[in-house]
Amino acid sequence: MCAIVGIYGNENAARLASLALFSMQHRGQEATGISSSCNGKIFTKKDRGLVSEVFTEDALRYLKGNMAIGHNRYSTAGGDSILDAQPVFAKYKLGEISIVHNGNLINKKEVREDLIDKGAIFQTGMDTENLIHLIAKNTQDKLRDRIKEALERTIGAYCFIVQSRNKQFVIRDRYGIRPLSLGKLKSGGFIVSSETCAFDLVDAEFVRDVKPGEMLIFTENCEEPESIQLFEAEHRPCAFEYVYFARPDSVIDGKNVYLTRENMGRTLAKKDSDSSIKYDMVVPVPDSGVPAALGYASQSGIPFEYGIIRNHYVGRTFIEPTQEMRNMKVRMKLSPMRSLIKGKSLLVIDDSIVRGTTSKRIVKMLKDAGAKEVHFRVASPEIKFPCYYGIDTPHKEELISNNMTKDEVCEYIEADSLEYLSIEDLTSSIGSDRDYALESFNGDYFVTK
Amino acid sequence: MCAIVGIYGNENAARLASLALFSMQHRGQEATGISSSCNGKIFTKKDRGLVSEVFTEDALRYLKGNMAIGHNRYSTAGGDSILDAQPVFAKYKLGEISIVHNGNLINKKEVREDLIDKGAIFQTGMDTENLIHLIAKNTQDKLRDRIKEALERTIGAYCFIVQSRNKQFVIRDRYGIRPLSLGKLKSGGFIVSSETCAFDLVDAEFVRDVKPGEMLIFTENCEEPESIQLFEAEHRPCAFEYVYFARPDSVIDGKNVYLTRENMGRTLAKKDSDSSIKYDMVVPVPDSGVPAALGYASQSGIPFEYGIIRNHYVGRTFIEPTQEMRNMKVRMKLSPMRSLIKGKSLLVIDDSIVRGTTSKRIVKMLKDAGAKEVHFRVASPEIKFPCYYGIDTPHKEELISNNMTKDEVCEYIEADSLEYLSIEDLTSSIGSDRDYALESFNGDYFVTK
Amino acid sequence: MCAIVGIYGNENAARLASLALFSMQHRGQEATGISSSCNGKIFTKKDRGLVSEVFTEDALRYLKGNMAIGHNRYSTAGGDSILDAQPVFAKYKLGEISIVHNGNLINKKEVREDLIDKGAIFQTGMDTENLIHLIAKNTQDKLRDRIKEALERTIGAYCFIVQSRNKQFVIRDRYGIRPLSLGKLKSGGFIVSSETCAFDLVDAEFVRDVKPGEMLIFTENCEEPESIQLFEAEHRPCAFEYVYFARPDSVIDGKNVYLTRENMGRTLAKKDSDSSIKYDMVVPVPDSGVPAALGYASQSGIPFEYGIIRNHYVGRTFIEPTQEMRNMKVRMKLSPMRSLIKGKSLLVIDDSIVRGTTSKRIVKMLKDAGAKEVHFRVASPEIKFPCYYGIDTPHKEELISNNMTKDEVCEYIEADSLEYLSIEDLTSSIGSDRDYALESFNGDYFVTK
Amino acid sequence: MCAIVGIYGNENAARLASLALFSMQHRGQEATGISSSCNGKIFTKKDRGLVSEVFTEDALRYLKGNMAIGHNRYSTAGGDSILDAQPVFAKYKLGEISIVHNGNLINKKEVREDLIDKGAIFQTGMDTENLIHLIAKNTQDKLRDRIKEALERTIGAYCFIVQSRNKQFVIRDRYGIRPLSLGKLKSGGFIVSSETCAFDLVDAEFVRDVKPGEMLIFTENCEEPESIQLFEAEHRPCAFEYVYFARPDSVIDGKNVYLTRENMGRTLAKKDSDSSIKYDMVVPVPDSGVPAALGYASQSGIPFEYGIIRNHYVGRTFIEPTQEMRNMKVRMKLSPMRSLIKGKSLLVIDDSIVRGTTSKRIVKMLKDAGAKEVHFRVASPEIKFPCYYGIDTPHKEELISNNMTKDEVCEYIEADSLEYLSIEDLTSSIGSDRDYALESFNGDYFVTK
Repeated sequence: MCAIVGIYGNENAARLASLALFSMQHRGQEATGISSSCNGKIFTKKDRGLVSEVFTEDALRYLKGNMAIGHNRYSTAGGDSILDAQPVFAKYKLGEISIVHNGNLINKKEVREDLIDKGAIFQTGMDTENLIHLIAKNTQDKLRDRIKEALERTIGAYCFIVQSRNKQFVIRDRYGIRPLSLGKLKSGGFIVSSETCAFDLVDAEFVRDVKPGEMLIFTENCEEPESIQLFEAEHRPCAFEYVYFARPDSVIDGKNVYLTRENMGRTLAKKDSDSSIKYDMVVPVPDSGVPAALGYASQSGIPFEYGIIRNHYVGRTFIEPTQEMRNMKVRMKLSPMRSLIKGKSLLVIDDSIVRGTTSKRIVKMLKDAGAKEVHFRVASPEIKFPCYYGIDTPHKEELISNNMTKDEVCEYIEADSLEYLSIEDLTSSIGSDRDYALESFNGDYFVTK
Repeated sequence: MCAIVGIYGNENAARLASLALFSMQHRGQEATGISSSCNGKIFTKKDRGLVSEVFTEDALRYLKGNMAIGHNRYSTAGGDSILDAQPVFAKYKLGEISIVHNGNLINKKEVREDLIDKGAIFQTGMDTENLIHLIAKNTQDKLRDRIKEALERTIGAYCFIVQSRNKQFVIRDRYGIRPLSLGKLKSGGFIVSSETCAFDLVDAEFVRDVKPGEMLIFTENCEEPESIQLFEAEHRPCAFEYVYFARPDSVIDGKNVYLTRENMGRTLAKKDSDSSIKYDMVVPVPDSGVPAALGYASQSGIPFEYGIIRNHYVGRTFIEPTQEMRNMKVRMKLSPMRSLIKGKSLLVIDDSIVRGTTSKRIVKMLKDAGAKEVHFRVASPEIKFPCYYGIDTPHKEELISNNMTKDEVCEYIEADSLEYLSIEDLTSSIGSDRDYALESFNGDYFVTK
Repeated sequence: MCAIVGIYGNENAARLASLALFSMQHRGQEATGISSSCNGKIFTKKDRGLVSEVFTEDALRYLKGNMAIGHNRYSTAGGDSILDAQPVFAKYKLGEISIVHNGNLINKKEVREDLIDKGAIFQTGMDTENLIHLIAKNTQDKLRDRIKEALERTIGAYCFIVQSRNKQFVIRDRYGIRPLSLGKLKSGGFIVSSETCAFDLVDAEFVRDVKPGEMLIFTENCEEPESIQLFEAEHRPCAFEYVYFARPDSVIDGKNVYLTRENMGRTLAKKDSDSSIKYDMVVPVPDSGVPAALGYASQSGIPFEYGIIRNHYVGRTFIEPTQEMRNMKVRMKLSPMRSLIKGKSLLVIDDSIVRGTTSKRIVKMLKDAGAKEVHFRVASPEIKFPCYYGIDTPHKEELISNNMTKDEVCEYIEADSLEYLSIEDLTSSIGSDRDYALESFNGDYFVTK
Repeated sequence: MCAIVGIYGNENAARLASLALFSMQHRGQEATGISSSCNGKIFTKKDRGLVSEVFTEDALRYLKGNMAIGHNRYSTAGGDSILDAQPVFAKYKLGEISIVHNGNLINKKEVREDLIDKGAIFQTGMDTENLIHLIAKNTQDKLRDRIKEALERTIGAYCFIVQSRNKQFVIRDRYGIRPLSLGKLKSGGFIVSSETCAFDLVDAEFVRDVKPGEMLIFTENCEEPESIQLFEAEHRPCAFEYVYFARPDSVIDGKNVYLTRENMGRTLAKKDSDSSIKYDMVVPVPDSGVPAALGYASQSGIPFEYGIIRNHYVGRTFIEPTQEMRNMKVRMKLSPMRSLIKGKSLLVIDDSIVRGTTSKRIVKMLKDAGAKEVHFRVASPEIKFPCYYGIDTPHKEELISNNMTKDEVCEYIEADSLEYLSIEDLTSSIGSDRDYALESFNGDYFVTK
């Protein structure tokens, strides 16, 4: 649940990297960083804060060179989180490298323990540090071979970009769980980024997705990156990217996110088509529920209405409400459209239910504002298992659908009815042409190599 | 183009005022301030920045007392804008007062010159200072009478809240141009605010709009405010509040903003109904064009789609694009939904066209992203005149519709067709039961007293 | 207890003003501000903080023009002190003016009440606002005559600099209580500043002190300022400037501050010459006690030693000591030179004793560090009365010498002996050629016009 | 040129560490950090800035536990210096450790290369990272044995404090080049710090210096630290600590810094005693030249006077002087006491001359202010060689005494005469009872193990 970007072969490399990170701010708001490379030296700037706060003109001037990698971080625990920001820089046998990473390594503990046993030290909590150690420890002469060997010991959902003094190595795991796409910059050179939504702002043309198990190597003046298939592909992209994580205008592995969300909504509508209940309007929980709600409305013919307004000025810290002002947190972000919903029967659509507390507050807010009925529809299946492949989900015990049946959840959130997509509904909405990573829904932790 | 709020008779007055201002952040992001009153002393805190930045717990603790007034400022020129933030505080003959103001006084220059002639000094550029002087100069024994006398010399579109050590006086001009509503706080006391969207967050019930020409007086332990009709009402609320300025969930003078915007869209669709052109989808310019686009889609049966995505992380300062990165400003905020619009004929709806530059960039962005045709619809009439009644519009020469015909504008923005609402369309969309302030469209500067 | 500066006729006016204020930072650290004047417009920048923090390159670029006035503020009460920073700007009948002020107006309350009675409003707590009102209210045609008339109603210790769009008016009260000197800039134009220590940094040559009761007027391309003697001089400069307030390298009304302090120390030594006690060393309380200690040592032949070290890194806020860490505040600033003072009899010199608490802590710290005896000498007389002429002294009841005899104070601070200068000692140390303002010592509040 | 501190066995460990670091702010102002240890977990907070800025109450609350180590950093190059702040934290085979370091390892490059050869990665430029690697790589069962083995490969001038989850290990190199002292806290537990000046503020009693080659081990509830003599002592403390780096109230290896500086001044005076020149006064370059100037004055009978005033408000960034305002940098910090020195023959004393540019500016400033003659005396020998033992000196070519003879330097700085201490003068002034590290003066780089 982070964003990564690499720019290669453009004199404005760091600036373009910062713009790409800006486009992917939704993937991580806690910290951001960029490493550029110039004349055999790597320059790094990373800090807490938004992209627009960290990358001042001064910072961009410091980040010299025609290649750069960057990262947005979702969140970290602890008091000195700056140390857990990326890129991670190190000097090792073959020189200087800097790495960015999106994903989660499932064997990180074992690898880390083994490395520590052999005398390694770890200065951060990031699994990115594992990869650097594995690269530094092996004895291959070339960085590409070291990366290969290192990845043989790495199990997980990952996208890495490794930058040396004059090259960039881009790797996507064999399952292609996290998204990663290649583009060509109109002003010269290449971009690799987690989402294609970054391409528009930097004026890049989509070339193709990085293939599962592929390593791309960018070298000086290359006309196109060298491609090495490191592992046999077993493509299973993460369904959650489509459900709510990616930006709607991104295209992931050939599928536009917005259109898959509309499909999810349409599928929900088809399942409701026998229902005898008459809904007055389809209301999305903004912003992520909007496309599914449009799909539902279009399929069902029930009017789509903005029954809930979102306040986009919510900052990161603000007034602590007093005890009398409970339930305020959700209301600072969302407001009911009183005039519209009064006395109406609402079909409310959200992308997912995790703990259930927000959904409960939304239902209450709508009923307090006069809604006659609130029928809740969720554009994804019940989340029963935590994700270990790069999405930050709570512990199993906190997942409401791990503890309650659908009916119990409906009662808990005080909705008049509740429906989810089935797992099959979800995959068919995204596209039945391939398998997906669905472990949060079905517990199938398939990553074994 | 500011927000004001008054809280009276609640021990959390400043905290509630800050929450109300937070709800009205869209009316002004440059500066914000609150004055509270406690034990005969007025406390003021004002600063540049967002409500969530300025009103820390420390600031709220300082703002003691059970009454408070607050203000969000839209923008100021100059280098020391903190001095032009509100509330404006002063000591005068009858004690201490603090004032907030939303609107624009059209005779401010004459009044100011006259006051200066008589020896007054002005420390700010704000017309709010005029009112304080007029109050301080006259010789009435009671503040209410001083305010009355002061207002007799004041011509313009205004809402004032004047706070003394133990009272609040709320005044709306005789035309009721700027909105102002009265609510009752469930936790005790009253709220008066520019928009009703503030009522939800502070748990207040809408009571009624403040009447044009009315003065409300809140006094200690009052069961309800005393009402004095200062001037005969000639109600003409500002049409622009409905068109784009107010938050969609607010109700202004009895009309829900969102619903009036849907009506504007419906009216546009009706006007297009004879058109032989087949549009593939209705695309709003987010966020303000959304309700009209929904109305258009609902009326016409053409599908509504989010063809343009808005990035809400745009901060107040960021990377200066290099010369090669022109046109970036609009693209940092808006992105085209490439997969959706490619090869399609789009019916794009925005709330208004002021200078035309943004519209031009949007059309270009959509065509660059593959749109076959872009038909532009504007949910308001052509803006041919500057507003002097409180909306910050550019000089007459910069208004594109002052310089060009509709066809010329269409050519300039490179749209395939262009339509506006007529003035009659607009007023009928809002509600034909009364007159509106329409000076930006028809040049009818009706405020004369 | 503030600093003021005026620069006239130099293209780097604001920059030079900021450097002069930087040299006078010891006179006020809470807030600082500068107004420049360019093409008939006055530009102002003022803020909380140190000169080096407020006057960034951006700020200096904004402050265009070849004349500027500036101010350092010592302290203000209240939560919104930025409003009480200077310069104070106003528009009035004759145009724009900006004023800085050092001193205290003793009839400010009466004048303010009278002005308020006549309809004036006051937006700050600063007596500077009085002067602007008095200037604005009268009906003279020329600003110089308005200032004259305004000053006729102004009683107190004051130095004002009034800047209009193209002139500067400099006024020192008839008693010359607060210092003010005129210099000529080597790079062109003039400087007027509270202390001559500012002249070195801006490369100015001392011309002369502004005379008590004098008004200097700087006009475009003037070869030298016009001088008008507004009031008959009755020169009585403030003795406290010499005792501890001014910087030692300043020359005030012909007397170098450092040398007068040495004299005070010499006089203390002469008074001690009959004493049978043998002191091992003279120890100053740094920094302000140093020159007097040098004088004492030179006169008595007893060695001068740095028995107390001062830590200059003490910032404005820091760690709250826990209850066990009492007395820490003075120790964070001052440390005993243990090796030097162990077992020694110390003659400790400070510039003054106000409340007695700091002196008590210093004596305790020295004894805890092993000093055998601590004999306390004070290079000024007992402070029995508050100052109303511009120095920020506590209320009468808090002045230890108002409540205790010398012997009682000695016992309270736990010193082995205690001596002060007599009032005659003080004046003869500074120079017997004129009278001084001595109201803190003798209660002679002589300012009556 | 840094400060380190360890607190063991006190419930306010982090708070006391921050106070000790505050006392040693003169040893490093760029960055500061503290690691505490509590319940088997190490907490770290480090950042750019002064101690008083970084260690807020929030930070201290986060730093739980009854042991803590801290560090002040002098300076780093590069754009992301936060990564080069200390303590350095790592997880390794035996658990978590955190290390602070003052000094310089002269074989760091070889060790680093060797470690890298064997597969280690380095994430910072700090030699502290070497030690962690050496500790992590060896196979001893106990941390104490790992530290021992690690130090066998470490050549240089160093003081380390290593903190594990429940112990602290304190090590001073065999030469005792950098200072390190042990104290007992009156509120319980121990302190180890670079300088004894920290003891006063935290209420600690000096116990003894850490011995050259000694390791102290603090364990839970220990009555006193265990002491292990790791290496045979060959004590040669750094002469520069006495000359100018340490705070005057510190006692280093039994000698009070202030008193050694007075001796240096006295020795200078004895060498001048045959001179036929009559000096009017002894003037120190403040603050570091003051004690030597007092010694000179006391020895020679020539009066000591503050002919140069230091402005302590100089911040870290400020106004860039324009081209016309050259030489301003030294004048913002130092001002001449014009009245005192005019027409006088001055004996000016500074602690050392490095590049010569500051001395040149001081002489010019004094002559411009009217000094008749400026005789420059330096309380240390000519600096001809860079220091590699922990003091930040410039490259050999930039050292003026490497390039010029004494007479040439005198001519360059435009002094009327110039004298230094000889190396023998220096050592006899500090104390002839032992050898000193004098490599900057004599090029004797004696550290070989």
